Amino acid sequence: MRDGRVEFEIVRKDILARIGKLKVKGKTIETPTLLPVINPWKMTIKPKELWRNGFKALITNAYLLWKRDREDVLRNGIHSYLNFPGMIVTDSGAYQILKYGSIEITQDEILNFQIGIGADIGVILDIPTRGESREEAEKSIEETIVRAREAQRIIQDTDMGWIGPIQGGGYIDLLEKAATEMEKMSFDIYAVGSPTIILERYDYPTLVDMILSVKRVVKPSHPLHLFGAGHPAMLGLAVALGCDLFDSAAYALFAYDNRYLTENGTLRLEEIEEFPCVCPICRTYKPKEVLKMEKSDRERLIALHNLFKTQEELRRVKESIRRRRLWEYLEVRTTSHPSLRDAFKRMVKYNDFIEQEAPQWSEKGIFILSDISSYRPEVVGFRKKLERYRKRRRRRCTLVIGEINEEIKIRHYKEKVDLYVFKPPYGAVPSTLLEAYPMGKTEITTSLPTHTIIESLKEAIDFLKEKYNEVRILVENEEIKTLLKEIQIKTRTILEEMK
Amino acid sequence: MRDGRVEFEIVRKDILARIGKLKVKGKTIETPTLLPVINPWKMTIKPKELWRNGFKALITNAYLLWKRDREDVLRNGIHSYLNFPGMIVTDSGAYQILKYGSIEITQDEILNFQIGIGADIGVILDIPTRGESREEAEKSIEETIVRAREAQRIIQDTDMGWIGPIQGGGYIDLLEKAATEMEKMSFDIYAVGSPTIILERYDYPTLVDMILSVKRVVKPSHPLHLFGAGHPAMLGLAVALGCDLFDSAAYALFAYDNRYLTENGTLRLEEIEEFPCVCPICRTYKPKEVLKMEKSDRERLIALHNLFKTQEELRRVKESIRRRRLWEYLEVRTTSHPSLRDAFKRMVKYNDFIEQEAPQWSEKGIFILSDISSYRPEVVGFRKKLERYRKRRRRRCTLVIGEINEEIKIRHYKEKVDLYVFKPPYGAVPSTLLEAYPMGKTEITTSLPTHTIIESLKEAIDFLKEKYNEVRILVENEEIKTLLKEIQIKTRTILEEMK
Repeated sequence: MRDGRVEFEIVRKDILARIGKLKVKGKTIETPTLLPVINPWKMTIKPKELWRNGFKALITNAYLLWKRDREDVLRNGIHSYLNFPGMIVTDSGAYQILKYGSIEITQDEILNFQIGIGADIGVILDIPTRGESREEAEKSIEETIVRAREAQRIIQDTDMGWIGPIQGGGYIDLLEKAATEMEKMSFDIYAVGSPTIILERYDYPTLVDMILSVKRVVKPSHPLHLFGAGHPAMLGLAVALGCDLFDSAAYALFAYDNRYLTENGTLRLEEIEEFPCVCPICRTYKPKEVLKMEKSDRERLIALHNLFKTQEELRRVKESIRRRRLWEYLEVRTTSHPSLRDAFKRMVKYNDFIEQEAPQWSEKGIFILSDISSYRPEVVGFRKKLERYRKRRRRRCTLVIGEINEEIKIRHYKEKVDLYVFKPPYGAVPSTLLEAYPMGKTEITTSLPTHTIIESLKEAIDFLKEKYNEVRILVENEEIKTLLKEIQIKTRTILEEMK
Repeated sequence: MRDGRVEFEIVRKDILARIGKLKVKGKTIETPTLLPVINPWKMTIKPKELWRNGFKALITNAYLLWKRDREDVLRNGIHSYLNFPGMIVTDSGAYQILKYGSIEITQDEILNFQIGIGADIGVILDIPTRGESREEAEKSIEETIVRAREAQRIIQDTDMGWIGPIQGGGYIDLLEKAATEMEKMSFDIYAVGSPTIILERYDYPTLVDMILSVKRVVKPSHPLHLFGAGHPAMLGLAVALGCDLFDSAAYALFAYDNRYLTENGTLRLEEIEEFPCVCPICRTYKPKEVLKMEKSDRERLIALHNLFKTQEELRRVKESIRRRRLWEYLEVRTTSHPSLRDAFKRMVKYNDFIEQEAPQWSEKGIFILSDISSYRPEVVGFRKKLERYRKRRRRRCTLVIGEINEEIKIRHYKEKVDLYVFKPPYGAVPSTLLEAYPMGKTEITTSLPTHTIIESLKEAIDFLKEKYNEVRILVENEEIKTLLKEIQIKTRTILEEMK
């Protein structure tokens, strides 16, 4: 068992998100964070400039360094070689090795090289799941696990941290299997290995499945890395699912193509009349000026903007976590892209797990902003509690639709009839719990969709009927009744026409 | 008639928003824009620093200048006095004069003073609608109109621009009346006069009523100013309604109170652990550092950030206008605050006017993101066209629910039966117009709420029944039918329980 080389202290939580302090070899960074990918042979932005701009960690490729500048890096150490005093993560270059079909290096060699150059965190020589077939995915998992076992002998006695990539691509059962095996080997940090194909397809719902299937297996005390994901639009969601580390070359690759990052996508530099951003680059230069620059200058400036934009997103997400407003943040944020919205809804599938792990109490109160609010952990948790809740073994109950008053309360108390109030999205809430958390701290800021109200009311009635011999409904507010009647008539008319 | 002193060229349009070039006295600014309010006796940020940071126009208070530094400003001119080469708007100080009950200055004097100091744009000595009573509102309108008439004699022969404030507060009929009278006097720029109380209450739906009631009267060739509104959260909506100029002291007033602007509100500086922004201030300083500074330095830095943030919002809005994506922008943006959402929905009331003024065609295509998309001008316009559309005087028609194929088309053609396809939110679309704009360019990126589908289907059927003797419904896709049946059963069950 490796232990204590990487310290990870969780300081704040919201949903499955955490703000953490990750410490290794005397260096500390705050998570969630994005590690800019530095290609040692094409540094769009120099590591020193990253450092000056507040990036405390980066990731680079050990294999590329080994291949071309081995002696120099070994002699000077990676920090001096890159001129970067922060935390340096080295990827093993597994992807490149596979891609170029090279067999010129063994895992032992690349592990020893990462140790030798003084990286702070390294990666074993895993086999990324490429392509789409299940066979390939299975093979990549098996080989990665074999290599992970073989690696233990070397990595065990080092003072650096090690990442254990969990392969399986979009095959959820395989990911779970891989996670279970990798978890046994207790790496410092785990990584969801190969989301690239899924991300390129904007298949965010599957990404939710992938992350959560790993998350359910790996202990929450380990940081979780999501390889190759750095698009601002999806970072908040990934953080909410419990990802702590991201790396991405997108800032530089986009810059190479004159693509300028915005909250929700990219714009082509040629199309921009005015930069819709306030970062130092965008406040200093005009799009036309940047367009006329030398390619290397232009790339550098766009890359910097792209990084700032990504960092801004993470800062906003962190701010939301600190205020326990991450759910609200995502409700607004995910409206920008249908696939993100679907991904957010996909989380509903994992309600039980999320509700169990997520912090349940907040002094801040809860906003019900849309139908998706019905699935926030506090609401799910409270509904579960309601299922178990039954004060005494009474035979009768009343469900009030609308507000209750003292007279109703007293009457029911005297008649020994349990009293419930219909409160969507919670459902049938015992009158005694109306002021309890979270119900008492919930502000319903929107008219919920009719469908949600009908579903919730139907559920509430069914729920009470199961518990009581006699359920009476007391309509104190005619609004819902009128709504139901209208829909009843409309749907009937339409259905008759359809016959 | 004053003419030609202020040139206003509209270069882009979306909904009622415009990107314009406003030119006066040789100075040109691009609208929509925010004029930072400069208090001559307490400059949180010096005008020169505003200029250096890309603010090409500001607004200051002529009355305060007159009161304390009259000779000096007259001698040097306002641009030299403030050390600001950009466009300077002077408010007449009507508000201060009322507030402090001063009668020491006449309208003629303050008009001549604004002319004398060389302001680029001035305001007459209007009477802002304060308080809540209708009587007060009526009085402020009457007096403002009298003064506006009296002012003509002096302002007519100047080379500067003049703003005609339209009073009435939240009283829509009074605003309309005032707008009608003021419009006759042909000021260069009109202003919605007194939204302050409404804004302080976050009563954005009423703000929509106010702006549009003025907008319907004032010619679109005039720029429209919204006094005292500068909160990032509502700027996009106000621009979409046709406001071109904003002024706000909020950046400085908030800074005075250590309040830091975000997209959706303010944070107290003491509460911030990390600035969730990438502006030069937020990238240079940490919240704790700013907190420890001298009050004047702290105020200046927060005020600058607050201005950058506001400017960023306007830049994003402009970017959306250029891409004809303002509606989509607002659909996402207004989810952040229920009152903003309600305000966006309030626009529906003005569908006819908006549809008539808004550009109808875009090569970009249309995204249906939520139920509110049903009200975008292109959808409303197309539905209106459908109402008028009827190829021949046929007796029978078929409404297809689901996709149509060639066989169905040919059969209906032969049998001389008009063929419609149900396409929410458009309703019953003639099969011949399925590829026409905007239908053919519409991407429905979400499952519309059940309620919207039912409404739309009911409307479609009613619409066809009015036009044809015989309407047949052909269900090619069972999904909607199943949905309707489910709802039918659920609502019936609930209603029975309610009896």
